[in-house]
Amino acid sequence: MMMGVNPGSHQNEPKRRGRRSGGEDTKAALLAAAREVFVERGYEGATVRSIAARAGVDAAMVNHWFGGKEALFAKAVLHVPVDINALIDRLLDGPDEEIGERIVRNFIGVWDPIGGGPFAAMVRSVTSHGQVADVLRAFFVQTLLKRLVTHLDAPDAELRATLLASQIFGMGMVRYVVKFEPLASADVETVVKAIAPNLQRYLTGDIG
Amino acid sequence: MMMGVNPGSHQNEPKRRGRRSGGEDTKAALLAAAREVFVERGYEGATVRSIAARAGVDAAMVNHWFGGKEALFAKAVLHVPVDINALIDRLLDGPDEEIGERIVRNFIGVWDPIGGGPFAAMVRSVTSHGQVADVLRAFFVQTLLKRLVTHLDAPDAELRATLLASQIFGMGMVRYVVKFEPLASADVETVVKAIAPNLQRYLTGDIG
Repeated sequence: MMMGVNPGSHQNEPKRRGRRSGGEDTKAALLAAAREVFVERGYEGATVRSIAARAGVDAAMVNHWFGGKEALFAKAVLHVPVDINALIDRLLDGPDEEIGERIVRNFIGVWDPIGGGPFAAMVRSVTSHGQVADVLRAFFVQTLLKRLVTHLDAPDAELRATLLASQIFGMGMVRYVVKFEPLASADVETVVKAIAPNLQRYLTGDIG
Repeated sequence: MMMGVNPGSHQNEPKRRGRRSGGEDTKAALLAAAREVFVERGYEGATVRSIAARAGVDAAMVNHWFGGKEALFAKAVLHVPVDINALIDRLLDGPDEEIGERIVRNFIGVWDPIGGGPFAAMVRSVTSHGQVADVLRAFFVQTLLKRLVTHLDAPDAELRATLLASQIFGMGMVRYVVKFEPLASADVETVVKAIAPNLQRYLTGDIG
């Protein structure tokens, strides 16, 4: 599976403590440490410093290889090979009344190329481990939600965000995990026309 | 967990072959056999007769204990303690323009009392075993979908049904598995107002 978040080359190997001999080793160690620390301490409690310490590397390596805590979380726990902050910037860049459409296009743009495996893995880890669900919840609330709420300034922002999450989760389940046709293979324009208005209603429409 | 589909008492024990000594044993044997046979042969290929034979009981026991193949499937594979045909009857009983609301009320009515465990178990088995996803797909297409399609007579019926499935799956994920608040604890009227119009649009609105 492509990683998509690796901005560097293998020349920047951390020599600290001599425990890691290559960049891929560092990345793998950080991912493993991140999974442990996020589950142990929750999203907020897990600091970049504590994850790096667990992996035995310098904290700067997190920014170097992943771009920050959010992206490391996305890769390690959500199995999403994207920079979450850059993704949110793309979602918010445009008219508010088209945010539903941008969400559908970006969701399909991220997941279609890598297929259903990583999405199913994410869902499986959420359903199997209560702590992962806790961490995922904290992440959605404290990262994604906080930025969407601030931007849209709609009433009942928290409810809207969870409604949005429900349709996005379900879209991923049907398209990538259970693969119900014709939605699983529908082209992006069909999916946009079908689902974007529903997402838009959740975010900016009358929901009460 | 309550079963909810058991219409009989322990007096009707099958004595055939002398292998099963109690009604609960027969039920458990049928559930185990059903899981195996549905996964091996798919939803259509798995006959009541073949499941009963695997369990070593008479085929009439399936109707006696579960009410038929659909209900046995729902209980054994989906972990849903309801009679699917009775559920579909309830969904279709009323004005077409309120079917979205009836779906939300029935969904919450079934799952809220038993909590998230069985829903998470269903999602986990779907994500872990490709065959379960295949069986689930066939069941949705050939049982639920066929009846909804026949009833609603809308264009693009298959796409509408899979869109419906996406929102229902997602509602279950957020309310029972990842438990994002406030949707996870919202009262049924709040959920109806928020989600029913979106389901209704998928089933009878303009989606293209």
